Amino acid sequence: MQNTHFQSLEGRKIEMKKTALIMAGGRGERFWPKSRANLPKQFLSLTGDGKTMIQLTVERILPLVDIKDIYIATNRSYKTLVKEQLPEIPDENILCEPIGRNTAPCIGLGAVHISKKYDDAIMYVLPSDHLITHPQIFRRTLSEAADVAEKGDNLVTLGITPTYPETGYGYIKISQDETLGEAFKVDCFVEKPDAETARKYIAAQQYLWNSGMFIWKVSTILSNLKKSMTETYEGLLRIKAAIGTEEQEKVLENEFQAFRSESIDYGVMEKAENIYILSGSFGWDDVGSWLAIERMQPCNEFGNVINGNVVSIDTKNTIIQGNGKLIATVGIEDLVVIDTDDVTLICDKNSTGDIKKIIENLKICNRTEYL
Amino acid sequence: MQNTHFQSLEGRKIEMKKTALIMAGGRGERFWPKSRANLPKQFLSLTGDGKTMIQLTVERILPLVDIKDIYIATNRSYKTLVKEQLPEIPDENILCEPIGRNTAPCIGLGAVHISKKYDDAIMYVLPSDHLITHPQIFRRTLSEAADVAEKGDNLVTLGITPTYPETGYGYIKISQDETLGEAFKVDCFVEKPDAETARKYIAAQQYLWNSGMFIWKVSTILSNLKKSMTETYEGLLRIKAAIGTEEQEKVLENEFQAFRSESIDYGVMEKAENIYILSGSFGWDDVGSWLAIERMQPCNEFGNVINGNVVSIDTKNTIIQGNGKLIATVGIEDLVVIDTDDVTLICDKNSTGDIKKIIENLKICNRTEYL
Repeated sequence: MQNTHFQSLEGRKIEMKKTALIMAGGRGERFWPKSRANLPKQFLSLTGDGKTMIQLTVERILPLVDIKDIYIATNRSYKTLVKEQLPEIPDENILCEPIGRNTAPCIGLGAVHISKKYDDAIMYVLPSDHLITHPQIFRRTLSEAADVAEKGDNLVTLGITPTYPETGYGYIKISQDETLGEAFKVDCFVEKPDAETARKYIAAQQYLWNSGMFIWKVSTILSNLKKSMTETYEGLLRIKAAIGTEEQEKVLENEFQAFRSESIDYGVMEKAENIYILSGSFGWDDVGSWLAIERMQPCNEFGNVINGNVVSIDTKNTIIQGNGKLIATVGIEDLVVIDTDDVTLICDKNSTGDIKKIIENLKICNRTEYL
Repeated sequence: MQNTHFQSLEGRKIEMKKTALIMAGGRGERFWPKSRANLPKQFLSLTGDGKTMIQLTVERILPLVDIKDIYIATNRSYKTLVKEQLPEIPDENILCEPIGRNTAPCIGLGAVHISKKYDDAIMYVLPSDHLITHPQIFRRTLSEAADVAEKGDNLVTLGITPTYPETGYGYIKISQDETLGEAFKVDCFVEKPDAETARKYIAAQQYLWNSGMFIWKVSTILSNLKKSMTETYEGLLRIKAAIGTEEQEKVLENEFQAFRSESIDYGVMEKAENIYILSGSFGWDDVGSWLAIERMQPCNEFGNVINGNVVSIDTKNTIIQGNGKLIATVGIEDLVVIDTDDVTLICDKNSTGDIKKIIENLKICNRTEYL
């Protein structure tokens, strides 16, 4: 086990080791037909710079975390993709969940791997498919969060200041009077609200969006798992004991099969104390649908975001992701057009939520080649 | 020269030989991307029955005209297409214009070929890219027209009873008091009107749409060409003299280069007398844009006309011509979606007239592979 505290060059401050767990097991359907069962959103390039979401996620934290301390939790079937897109990540840092059991077992798996390597460390828990437009501000926020996490056994989360009453996100109520540095104490986590409730949250000015990003010491999250999800915790300890042994894969398989599927929010955070939240203006976007393309890539004078082999006449406020084939548009507006080798999707901007109905239809018809 | 009058089996009536000239030189751009410079509309199957427009045109008149008396006038570059799609048409009946000179030289070319074979004959002049939904009524109308054409040196045209003030067609004013059988005497031909004028024409109930279909004796059209387009007529006589000689191609080339480009309407009909018009309820459609697909093929319960590999959710009043690739549509309406091997067109139904702007754009960019 390596020493986890080290002295800075100036010799003035002792800092805890920083590690990161990037969660990349998602199977999102909202970017179909580009995202497929074997190629989910985190492995797609959507920002127009040729880098995939997970590559951008790693690149963003590299100034804070040594590459050998970055862990990727993913589904077994995506291991090859992770290795292809992130060849610099050590093989043993790619943690393959045998089966998806939501975020609590996933984060627990990361925690025991890190705790096998270091006696304790700061652990940044990050989704692999979010966009951050200001990485420097983001890193400063993460570092502040690490300070808060280190000062006592605090669980720290990043909150996003809401700009409209979104009903697709969870909210976190803050306690504005209790602060620790830049962080507010968390009053409670609340589930995705209906429109009316969301409007109340915005008006109350006491709620932030739950970004799903967490910062804590490995020791803190493990003790919280022990308290709130005892069975899972015990399974995680058996996984930890098997790491590096011949039994590693078998134990992992058995324990994950037995784990209850549980989110970290519900399984741990809602029951925990000492939760703090930091908000930062680092330009967060969860890239939740094709409409996010407009926020990530520049529009032309007609409000179109166009990539690929496209000729457009009288076309407005339309997103076109072309491929090799020529896409010709005439007199259309407010559409999303996505062309891939075997599918062309044409979707009204107000209907992107219904793309899943296409997928359901294809599943029913057993047209697996398109899933 | 063959005998051109023959006695019917019953021995009661002498009928003039019936021949047809099908004009198939059009380069229509309105069915792009299915129609291309090397595959214009008349060679496309648009009705959903797998037959091309020109095949349907020939099939429609076969009960009236012997196959060996059907002539196809087309551009040289389409000769292979004609032979592929109409293998039963004698090779010498495929008349290749060296260069397009509008309908007057085209019809004149047909007339001299027919007059080389028969001393006189009825000549049906028909576009190759119109739809007729009631072929039997159409044939009855043609036969009536032939009777009118035979009784004296009459030029006969078919008119379509207008159903709305279309500005894209020429109109023909009829003289309701002068009739010959079912035919009205034509008062005058008028050019495509503006919207206001078109409304007046409809209100006046004295105007029919000009269908571009003509019926006359070969001798009648030739004498009219002689009178109104003397130079062209003389050139046509030189072409006739060269038919079957070694000089045939060279003379054809020279004369067509010299011909003035002229429509039969302007060059002959507007100056002629003894023009009669017959209208018939034979279900005519000039198939002028992709919107015609809706009139030719059945809609589903949501008003969609869909062919090919398509999955649609919440899609209304939309025309989709799929190809091998999956087209998935969500929440769209009033669109035309045409998929070909190398192009996908997405066009608002109200903008089909602007498809030509795409083609102009491609020409400017010299992207000839898409033209």
